[in-house]
Amino acid sequence: MTGAESRDASPTLDEVARLAGVSRATASRAVNGGSRVSPRAQQAVAEAVHRLGYTPNQAARSLVTRRTQSVALVVPEPDERVFADPFFARTVHIVTRELSAHDYQVVLLLAGGDDQESRMLRFLGNRQVDGAIVVSHHRGDSLPDHLSDLGLPSAFIGRPWSNSDRLSWVDTDNVAGGLEATRLLIDRGCRRIATIAGPTDMTAGVDRLDGWKQAMQSAGRRPDAIGYGDFTPEGGAYACRQLLEAHPDLDGIVVASDLMAVGAMEVLAAAGKQIPRDIAITGADDLGVAERTDPPLTTLRNPLSEMAAEAVTLLLGQLDGGSAAPRRVVFAPTLIRRASA
Amino acid sequence: MTGAESRDASPTLDEVARLAGVSRATASRAVNGGSRVSPRAQQAVAEAVHRLGYTPNQAARSLVTRRTQSVALVVPEPDERVFADPFFARTVHIVTRELSAHDYQVVLLLAGGDDQESRMLRFLGNRQVDGAIVVSHHRGDSLPDHLSDLGLPSAFIGRPWSNSDRLSWVDTDNVAGGLEATRLLIDRGCRRIATIAGPTDMTAGVDRLDGWKQAMQSAGRRPDAIGYGDFTPEGGAYACRQLLEAHPDLDGIVVASDLMAVGAMEVLAAAGKQIPRDIAITGADDLGVAERTDPPLTTLRNPLSEMAAEAVTLLLGQLDGGSAAPRRVVFAPTLIRRASA
Repeated sequence: MTGAESRDASPTLDEVARLAGVSRATASRAVNGGSRVSPRAQQAVAEAVHRLGYTPNQAARSLVTRRTQSVALVVPEPDERVFADPFFARTVHIVTRELSAHDYQVVLLLAGGDDQESRMLRFLGNRQVDGAIVVSHHRGDSLPDHLSDLGLPSAFIGRPWSNSDRLSWVDTDNVAGGLEATRLLIDRGCRRIATIAGPTDMTAGVDRLDGWKQAMQSAGRRPDAIGYGDFTPEGGAYACRQLLEAHPDLDGIVVASDLMAVGAMEVLAAAGKQIPRDIAITGADDLGVAERTDPPLTTLRNPLSEMAAEAVTLLLGQLDGGSAAPRRVVFAPTLIRRASA
Repeated sequence: MTGAESRDASPTLDEVARLAGVSRATASRAVNGGSRVSPRAQQAVAEAVHRLGYTPNQAARSLVTRRTQSVALVVPEPDERVFADPFFARTVHIVTRELSAHDYQVVLLLAGGDDQESRMLRFLGNRQVDGAIVVSHHRGDSLPDHLSDLGLPSAFIGRPWSNSDRLSWVDTDNVAGGLEATRLLIDRGCRRIATIAGPTDMTAGVDRLDGWKQAMQSAGRRPDAIGYGDFTPEGGAYACRQLLEAHPDLDGIVVASDLMAVGAMEVLAAAGKQIPRDIAITGADDLGVAERTDPPLTTLRNPLSEMAAEAVTLLLGQLDGGSAAPRRVVFAPTLIRRASA
């Protein structure tokens, strides 16, 4: 059976018109949101459409359900960064696969700059999509408040900066990850352990740093050798240079992302440091980068595919039921031992 | 003057209500597309909105202009490929920059699979955007016909497979590029020149191959050593292995993209071939990959940034005027000499 044949079984516009007691032309105008339709006819057509389950196209569907059958994947980052970090490629892949299976078109919104943010908020505010999945949210953007106020179905990948109890999100236990990586370096005998933390306006950055601090303090170490990066190789290289200069006795670095670790390892190699003999180093993410460094990078694997799929599930609960309570799901990271620590 | 102050000068909803002769509540419902508004009041409000140039938000703007202030960037490719090829990162960057400057939200639609295409065509058919820019179109997709039938403002980056004279597009002169690269190898004394062509369902693939054939025939050479790839390193490696096996005397390869050339160069290195001494090789694109190969790759630079900006210009002409005639703009490639040929 072809698609066209199977569609023949669906109710037709003629049936809608008959049930509504209007002409086919009027039914067509009503279904297509035309203006030359009386409120009474509009209402009758909407009821007929609803009773018959008539869904010839989006206009009709919108009339009944106010749905667009599309979901925004919102990434408040500059496009250059989105294309350079496998974190985003993986997220887009999983979110697209899962939402496609439920007949939703994914529209990807990249909004790195200030003026881009206001435009993106306008797009969401106009409900040009049925819902949103937000990834890589920063403290300064207005996304949690905006989505909470709008009541637009949404789910965050990464815990949002917000006290709103109306938001759903998935996250990794990044404090546990920071703790575990730091304990590994302490246990292998490192005496002077630094960290290269992520951005302080992202919960993943703050939480991983917090885990490092807790492990250092528990072991009676001073948590004072801290560099900051922006999750890029360049940021990691810059922070590593600063740390080497300030702490020449450095023999361990807990890095908050694999890409930053790549940059740090280049700086260490250029400074003649052998990994792990002179300096042991760990990363975080494990999305294809860590196994290709020299030496291969010991890292914390975050189950990003599972997280992204779970975010879609949380969103679908709101889209389908319309009343699913906000939910939060936290995944555990896994330490992957390779050669760097 | 702050944004809020400057907005005070704009017409208010009260003025709209006064001019339309309706209450503020009715004006608000009409502007926001509410259903409890008589057709007469709806019409009066629409006229008042139009006369005053009242544009508080998208709902009102849509009422007057039926615009969404958003444009789709359509990429009929699997998301994995989009994230792996700098061609797409550059295109997204330029299109977003140019459209943002005109207050359009870019929505990125990736549609690699068959079911994803029908969903994407539905999205465009419902006019959830004001227009579309299409990049990496394949012969099998229905985009040219669909957009032409819809009359949706659009521009293609890369010449579409279509006889429609209603489509606007930008392209590189890929036949000239193929010719020039091949002549370079002939002139440097290569005796057995193969090509690794792009996909035969893309005009860029077919045109570059055509240029190679023309140059070979003009020089009295048999154009019979042809491999095909899919513009990825893996595809280039596969084609190169086949060619080496079929033509052991190979001493020159014209490759239709830099990424495919990267794959081919790895195969050549593994086979103990020195570049360019044993085999000379050229690429196409020059988007950051070619200068980092070993040896650096001689290639054809396509002015992608200019092309993408021109595509936006062609689209804006249709969006603003509504009646701009279809236009085609072809850019010349530039031969960039490096060490590989």
